[in-house]
Amino acid sequence: MKRPAVRITDVAALAGVSAGTASKALNNTGQLSQETRARVQRAAAQLGFTPDARGRALSSGRTYTVALLTTDSSGRFSIPIMRGVEDVLSAGELATVLCDTRDDPLREQSYLRSLVARGVDGIVVTGRRTEPRPPIDVPLPVVYAMAASSDPSDASVLVDDAAGAAAAVTHLLELGRSRIAHITGPADHRSAIERAQAVAATTTLVGPPLFGEWSEQWGRQATDVVLRTHPAVDAISCGSDQIARGVCDRLRELGRDVPTEIAVTGYDDWPVMALASRPPLTSVDLRLEELGRRAAQLLLDAIAGRPHHGVLELPAVLIPRESTLGS
Amino acid sequence: MKRPAVRITDVAALAGVSAGTASKALNNTGQLSQETRARVQRAAAQLGFTPDARGRALSSGRTYTVALLTTDSSGRFSIPIMRGVEDVLSAGELATVLCDTRDDPLREQSYLRSLVARGVDGIVVTGRRTEPRPPIDVPLPVVYAMAASSDPSDASVLVDDAAGAAAAVTHLLELGRSRIAHITGPADHRSAIERAQAVAATTTLVGPPLFGEWSEQWGRQATDVVLRTHPAVDAISCGSDQIARGVCDRLRELGRDVPTEIAVTGYDDWPVMALASRPPLTSVDLRLEELGRRAAQLLLDAIAGRPHHGVLELPAVLIPRESTLGS
Repeated sequence: MKRPAVRITDVAALAGVSAGTASKALNNTGQLSQETRARVQRAAAQLGFTPDARGRALSSGRTYTVALLTTDSSGRFSIPIMRGVEDVLSAGELATVLCDTRDDPLREQSYLRSLVARGVDGIVVTGRRTEPRPPIDVPLPVVYAMAASSDPSDASVLVDDAAGAAAAVTHLLELGRSRIAHITGPADHRSAIERAQAVAATTTLVGPPLFGEWSEQWGRQATDVVLRTHPAVDAISCGSDQIARGVCDRLRELGRDVPTEIAVTGYDDWPVMALASRPPLTSVDLRLEELGRRAAQLLLDAIAGRPHHGVLELPAVLIPRESTLGS
Repeated sequence: MKRPAVRITDVAALAGVSAGTASKALNNTGQLSQETRARVQRAAAQLGFTPDARGRALSSGRTYTVALLTTDSSGRFSIPIMRGVEDVLSAGELATVLCDTRDDPLREQSYLRSLVARGVDGIVVTGRRTEPRPPIDVPLPVVYAMAASSDPSDASVLVDDAAGAAAAVTHLLELGRSRIAHITGPADHRSAIERAQAVAATTTLVGPPLFGEWSEQWGRQATDVVLRTHPAVDAISCGSDQIARGVCDRLRELGRDVPTEIAVTGYDDWPVMALASRPPLTSVDLRLEELGRRAAQLLLDAIAGRPHHGVLELPAVLIPRESTLGS
């Protein structure tokens, strides 16, 4: 028996909910009432929707696919975001294709032509920087994750960097630290600027933020500058875990105890840096998987004909460890 | 005008070459004679094969897709391998889907059912460990990359770990070092065992290899053990860059100069470790992109009906830096 494939958007329509809600209900995620969850499950059963794609894909001869377009060649940001996207889409049996543009506009154009030609159902655009980017020009539903579209009528899901940076400084203030310095990345990187502004808005720093690069080496060098210009500093808030690790290394070499003398906070909660640091870093978790999940839910709604507009900011979460709490 | 889609395997058949060779010719990679390259290009022109998929995909209503199935959730190994796979397949306008099994057998089974149902053209299987793995059971062409299939009639592409580890020790011997220790990862990891055996076969070590874990902390701890038991050691060969970075940190803390007193080698050439280390690490580059390219070429041949069998080992490449050469 051949019949048209049932899609999660059909289930959503019958249940009278958005595709994102239908996905959450079938995926057992999100905060839904039991009644909504049950209604979606009844709709899925009635339509013969099953999380096993075999029957559907074979009968329809069509592949449901969503692409994740990224400029992050290292996978440092795109892999956790992709995992979140997959969590949501696999409940609707959509496959996720990762396309790495290697930050090359020609390669991006070539991918977009190919994705449109292949008939993908939608695209999540992400990258390794948080600067707003020009929208991509495709006749498909698109959601931007981590870096917003410069067109405010597009749907973008971002990390609330300002709140994350403020949370780290608030934590230092609550621990009784009052002479705080800020060391961060390049002065032309939006993420460095936003975090520095949020830090300066939360407390009076011992001096202006030190902008440099996203590296351990810069963390070590800037530590020397801070100690020379503000010897009474009792905390250093850093714009990344790499910088914070360099700060901790330099302070240890100088015989200054972390956190007893000087507390240190990182940013990103990148395990390979935050946990290998001595001491392990108090950091700010960007919750990239959650970012991916929310982007996928917005994309499902857009595919179902209910596009969202504007910017959704998700909270980053402070993870306290020994670099502020001690052991 | 509608006509059947021209695929790279059609071009290969007309030119009388394998699909892998056709891909290399159209991709301008590999070592091919000018005559072969020209013959493939003539065949492509004759059949109307174009690297722009639009016409083909639209006229055929079908998506050509290859899946990369991985257990490496960090993307540390799978992202460079995927980049290599894409290099080759994009010349034939095949899309690459990344499927992260999160090392969960049930999730792997679910992915495989879904990929078969979706009609993917072939699968590259990879992971974060080098242990041979049971073959996947699908009616599709499959190539194993980095970890071999336990069925010798399957096609597997591996890094020649033994030669890589031997190259690092040979480099130390050529620099005049003769009292060499080896610090590496867990004794039940094939990559640790293979590297340690190759090191011990290349030189007489000051003592048995020290097996521990893949961490900087273990590198620091094992350094103390080596210095206590073999105070005259003049080089430490390490099974990973993380271990080597820990070794360098500990030696610096003890006031022992690297490399003047003790030379250190890493393994993996992972930039975030090898370049951030003080001093930067001489390491062994696994050439994962090349591994991906070769796996994709073998897969193209298998898709074209010419499967390969057995294990192909690719050389790893020594990258000398300050941790052995000095500055």
